[in-house]
Amino acid sequence: MSGAPFGARLTESVAARGSLCVGIDPHPGLLDQWGLPRDVSGLERFALTCVEAFAGDISVLKPQSAFFEAYGSRGVAVLERVIADARSAGALVLLDVKRGDIGSTMAAYAQAYLSDGSPLAADAVTVSPYLGFGSLDPAIEEAARTGRGLFVLARTSNPEGAGVQHARVDGVGGASGVTVAQSIVDQAAAHNAGATPLGSIGLVVGATVGRADLDLSALNGPLLAPGLGAQGAGPADLAAVFGDALPAVLPASARDVLRHGPDVAALRSAALRVRDELAAAAR
Amino acid sequence: MSGAPFGARLTESVAARGSLCVGIDPHPGLLDQWGLPRDVSGLERFALTCVEAFAGDISVLKPQSAFFEAYGSRGVAVLERVIADARSAGALVLLDVKRGDIGSTMAAYAQAYLSDGSPLAADAVTVSPYLGFGSLDPAIEEAARTGRGLFVLARTSNPEGAGVQHARVDGVGGASGVTVAQSIVDQAAAHNAGATPLGSIGLVVGATVGRADLDLSALNGPLLAPGLGAQGAGPADLAAVFGDALPAVLPASARDVLRHGPDVAALRSAALRVRDELAAAAR
Repeated sequence: MSGAPFGARLTESVAARGSLCVGIDPHPGLLDQWGLPRDVSGLERFALTCVEAFAGDISVLKPQSAFFEAYGSRGVAVLERVIADARSAGALVLLDVKRGDIGSTMAAYAQAYLSDGSPLAADAVTVSPYLGFGSLDPAIEEAARTGRGLFVLARTSNPEGAGVQHARVDGVGGASGVTVAQSIVDQAAAHNAGATPLGSIGLVVGATVGRADLDLSALNGPLLAPGLGAQGAGPADLAAVFGDALPAVLPASARDVLRHGPDVAALRSAALRVRDELAAAAR
Repeated sequence: MSGAPFGARLTESVAARGSLCVGIDPHPGLLDQWGLPRDVSGLERFALTCVEAFAGDISVLKPQSAFFEAYGSRGVAVLERVIADARSAGALVLLDVKRGDIGSTMAAYAQAYLSDGSPLAADAVTVSPYLGFGSLDPAIEEAARTGRGLFVLARTSNPEGAGVQHARVDGVGGASGVTVAQSIVDQAAAHNAGATPLGSIGLVVGATVGRADLDLSALNGPLLAPGLGAQGAGPADLAAVFGDALPAVLPASARDVLRHGPDVAALRSAALRVRDELAAAAR
């Protein structure tokens, strides 16, 4: 690792390469579209093509672990190669695993994904706080120690997410308090307080979530915003949702870029086009 | 697969082998205690020793995926062998992965862990509902199709879990409604309604959680209760926590049994002793 905290490395990368995060989602339907077999060889071809197309120009690549795990340990071995190759080419890798557990088990996930020398170590990972934000402490500590980052699920755009994320944490004297999602924001903000240029504890917030939902003003950390393109949000919508937090937002796109494959040049120019649209909309 | 639903297979197994679930947790500290190296060879030796000791007599074995993922794809390959060997010896395998995502990503996790022919397919897996209970539908459907089961995180015993699990889902007219944990129970119960002898959608509920917390009376599904032994609950406490639901409870123990290794006979007799204590306490 470079030694610098993730928030600093991310800020530097976004300044140089723009804010777009491209998802590497080897969905079976996309393998079909690219004329690849639905097996480990197709998975590997797909994922390494993505690395070749994006890793030299795009700030953050986000492989979705589920699509690799679907092929068992051999799929996970492909994921290891994707992480290593993308990082060698200068991209930051945000591995989308949404892990969450307690105590020594959470520490084992931190070992797997955030420790120097682990074959699956990325620059940052997504984590899930159903067991409480505090259950993530072993990962927060390891990330701080190794200059890596976390993106904690806060408020997602799928409609059924509201059943948990909009529930109200009991306030003082049994009064109705903030939502679960806001309490996640607040706890991440407490960890990021005082960090410059940006803290290393990010959040996942859907790009189509209403702005009134959450107060992100004190976060001082990065926001991963899935849902650009295929899920309905355009670059202009991002400003409406995220407002002043927009400079720290990583809009994520997968399907809308990946449908241009398997041609490497076509994939790259599709990603660069989205990246430049985002830059123009943010001006 | 046998073709029978998971709830029926579990009921049959518990009748024959008792209700104990033994966790296979290759924690680094346990590898040290067993005189094994902290590497893939130590992991494999540890996990296959557990299979040899428990799979012929114990109803449910629960490997904790995090401890395998910590060694990357080679660790995941060991996990594949553990699952296959344990199932061949007649145990049910509940793989503790706590996955949770939406749409095609959740479907990919279902493919990985619940589909016939996948190298990581277990009899059941744990899942996390932070993205809403409804986000688990692709896994619920695949489990139903292949005779497998799910254990959805509901209420865990770690103190920081309350920040999410005790939040209140808005009721009618903005009134304060049930807790998030209870809403998970209610949605699982709806899926299990009418199943005999037992539905296939289980829950994870801590063995040290107070009984007043949750109404489990309509669940009609299995409960995984981690926290037996090392985490403080004894067999008698289970009756106090789970009451009438006790017949469907799988008390899970790991550290308290595993500390008797690496001797296979000592491990086996430790597990059988806990199993028999549980049976005596339930009478």
